[in-house]
Amino acid sequence: MTDISHRMNRVQAPIIPEVADLIDCNPGTISLGQGVVYYSPPEQINQGVQEFMKMNSHHYQAVEGIPALRNLISQKLRDENGIDASSYEIVVSAGSNMGFLNAILAIADTGDEIILLKPWYFNHEMAVRIADCIPVSVDTDQQFQPDVKLMEQAITNKTRAIVTVSPNNPTGAVYDREKLLEINELCRNSNIFHIHDEAYEYFCYDDAEHFSPASVESALDHTISLYSTSKSFGMANWRIGYMLIPPRLFKPVRKIQDTNLICPSVISQYAAMECLKVGRTFCDSRIAEIDKVRSHFQQRLTSNCAVSHGKLQGAFYAFLQLPDLGKSDMDIVRFLIEQYEVAVIPGVAFGIEHSRCIRASYGAMQPSTVVEGIDRLTQGLKNLLES
Amino acid sequence: MTDISHRMNRVQAPIIPEVADLIDCNPGTISLGQGVVYYSPPEQINQGVQEFMKMNSHHYQAVEGIPALRNLISQKLRDENGIDASSYEIVVSAGSNMGFLNAILAIADTGDEIILLKPWYFNHEMAVRIADCIPVSVDTDQQFQPDVKLMEQAITNKTRAIVTVSPNNPTGAVYDREKLLEINELCRNSNIFHIHDEAYEYFCYDDAEHFSPASVESALDHTISLYSTSKSFGMANWRIGYMLIPPRLFKPVRKIQDTNLICPSVISQYAAMECLKVGRTFCDSRIAEIDKVRSHFQQRLTSNCAVSHGKLQGAFYAFLQLPDLGKSDMDIVRFLIEQYEVAVIPGVAFGIEHSRCIRASYGAMQPSTVVEGIDRLTQGLKNLLES
Repeated sequence: MTDISHRMNRVQAPIIPEVADLIDCNPGTISLGQGVVYYSPPEQINQGVQEFMKMNSHHYQAVEGIPALRNLISQKLRDENGIDASSYEIVVSAGSNMGFLNAILAIADTGDEIILLKPWYFNHEMAVRIADCIPVSVDTDQQFQPDVKLMEQAITNKTRAIVTVSPNNPTGAVYDREKLLEINELCRNSNIFHIHDEAYEYFCYDDAEHFSPASVESALDHTISLYSTSKSFGMANWRIGYMLIPPRLFKPVRKIQDTNLICPSVISQYAAMECLKVGRTFCDSRIAEIDKVRSHFQQRLTSNCAVSHGKLQGAFYAFLQLPDLGKSDMDIVRFLIEQYEVAVIPGVAFGIEHSRCIRASYGAMQPSTVVEGIDRLTQGLKNLLES
Repeated sequence: MTDISHRMNRVQAPIIPEVADLIDCNPGTISLGQGVVYYSPPEQINQGVQEFMKMNSHHYQAVEGIPALRNLISQKLRDENGIDASSYEIVVSAGSNMGFLNAILAIADTGDEIILLKPWYFNHEMAVRIADCIPVSVDTDQQFQPDVKLMEQAITNKTRAIVTVSPNNPTGAVYDREKLLEINELCRNSNIFHIHDEAYEYFCYDDAEHFSPASVESALDHTISLYSTSKSFGMANWRIGYMLIPPRLFKPVRKIQDTNLICPSVISQYAAMECLKVGRTFCDSRIAEIDKVRSHFQQRLTSNCAVSHGKLQGAFYAFLQLPDLGKSDMDIVRFLIEQYEVAVIPGVAFGIEHSRCIRASYGAMQPSTVVEGIDRLTQGLKNLLES
C-alpha cells in the first residue's frame, strides 16, 4: 500500500493540537499550554496593512523578504543586539520555525547529527527528523543550564550543529554571555554550526540579560541566529520571523525558501515593518505585566507545592519536575485538565521520557486569568503530591 | 570548514531571481518571465482584511487552516471539481509549492524516487532534491503530452509517486480526462501516489477542459491534489494554496506544517475566503483577456518565426523549442533581454539540457504590454533564426 514515509513515522505528533482537543472537551479550562503572549500587536500595524492595500501590488516579491523590512531588521540588530548585520545575510521567513528548518536543510544531510539540549523545543526535534537527520540530546543541569563538557563529548564526525535557545523554551532559563560564547567557541573549534534561537530575546527578568553570540567577530563564520516577531510583538498568526546567516548560506537558504514558500506573505511583512518602527518599548511595558505574573507564579510554587524547577528567568515558561507518582506526564496533564480545569504541556513532548515533567506557559492570557490558572495548577499539583 | 549540505549542492539555483537581475540591468525590458497574472484580487478581500483586523485575534490558529476557509474550499471542490472532499482531508498551505513539499516529505524517504514529466516545474524538482529524494524524469511527446508507457517503464521499487501538472507549467499543455485517469490508474496499480498539481485549473482555452482525477472513486486512496489562489485570484504574494489528501496523510502533513509554518498567515486566509465567496466568475472574465493575448501569441508564432511548440491550451505559458544555434538557452535569454528588451526563462531550469528551449509567460502584464513583449520576442527569435 501507498504508505507514509518512515521519516514521518519517526516524528512525534504535534502536542499542542492534542492538548487543545482535551481542552475543548473540558470547557472552562484555563490553558497554560500554548506559547503566545496575551497582548495584541501595536495599532500601527493598521498603517502597514493600509499601505499594502493601497499599493494594490500582489505579485511575488523577494524570496528573502522585502528590502525595506530587511533594512529595519538590520538597524534593529545593530541597535539592540550589537550585531553588524552587514557581515551576515538576513532572510525573512514565515516564522522562526521555518528559519530553523531552512537552517537544518541548508547544512545537514541524511544521517547527520544535530545536538539539542534537553529538554528541547519540540519543533526543533521534529525538524531534525523531517530532514532525515538525527537529533542527539544532551542533558542540561538542575537549573537547565548547558553543560559544555557534555556537549563536547556528544560531538562526532557526523555532528553538523549545536542548537541553543535562550531565553529558553521550555525551561525559562537564560544563558549568560560567557556560557553562550563558550558554546559558540566550541562550535567554531569543532567546525560545526551554532544555531541560536533568540525568539524570546525581550523576555528577560530580574538580573538575567539577553546576549546574542552573533555579535562577536569570531562568530561570523558559523553562527545562525533566529528571531521572531510572533512573541515580542504579539503577532503570532501573521507568521513573520527572520534568520541571520553567514553569507555562504544565503544561496542554499534562498533555494529552500523559494521551493517551500516563494516569499513570506507580503501584507504580513508590511505589518512587521510597523512593529519594528514602533520598537521594543512597546513590548517592554507589556512584558512588565508578564513579569508580575511570573513573580506570583514563583511565589505560589515556593509556598504551595514543592516541585523542582529552574529559576524563572526568561521567556514565559516554567518547567516543573514532579516526583514519581505512578502516573505518566500525559496522565498528569489529563488529570489537571479534568479535575482542575487548567492545561499544561507534558514533558514527553520536550524529550523528557524517564521523569514526570510539565511545561506551564504564563504569558498567553490576561494577567488576571493566568494568575487564576497558576492557582489552579499549584493547587492541583499540591493535591496530587499529597494524595 | 562548516559547509553547506550536499543535498543543497544538488539543488539548482532559483532561476527567477537570476533572470530578474538581468532585467534590472536592462531597464525597459518587458518580462515574460515570472508566472503570475496581470490582475489584482477582487476588491472584496478588503472585507476579509477588515474583518480580521476587527477581531483583533493574533494567536496561532489551526495548523491545517481555519475551519471556515476549509469549508469554503470543500464547497468549491464539490461544485467546480466534482470532488467529494469529505473522502479526503483539506490542508491549507502557504502556497501550493508548500503543499508539494509537504506531500514529498510525507510519502518519501531519502533515496526514494519521484517521477516528474519533462519539462518539469523547477520547484518540483528542487523540492524532491531538498527532501533528499531522486527526481526521475520521463519525456513527454511533441505536444508535451504524457506517454503512459514511458511512465510505466520508469517505475521501480523505489518509486513513491508520479507528479503531473495540468494545465501545465511550463508547456501550456492540458491533459484530458482519459489521460489523467490512465495515469491515476497506473499509480493505483503500482501502489504509488499520484500527485496532481491543479494550480492553473481555471486557465483552459479552446476546447481544452480541466479535469480533477481526485473526482473518481478509485482515486481516493492514492491521489494528492494541489491548488492555489495565487494565479486564479491574482493574490500571489498572500501565499494561500491548499492540498487535498487521503485521510491517512493528514497526520504526517500536519506534523510537517506545524514544524515548518505552524499555520498559514491568518489575515491571508481571511482574504482567500472572500475570493472563494466571489468565486470563479471573477477569474473567468479576466482570463478571457489572457485568452486574447494567447491568440495573438499563437498567430505571431505561426506567422513570424518557425519555432516548435505545443498547442497553447492552458495556463499562460508557451514552451518554445529552438534549433541548434550554437548558443546555450541562457545565452539566448541574455541576447533577448539585451538586444530586444524582452525576458523569458531558459529551458535548462525545467530540466531540458540537450536542446535550446525557452518558456514565455503571457499572463503577467496588462494585455497591451504583453502583446508588445510577444512582438519583441517573436521579432528577436526571427532575427536569431535568420542570422
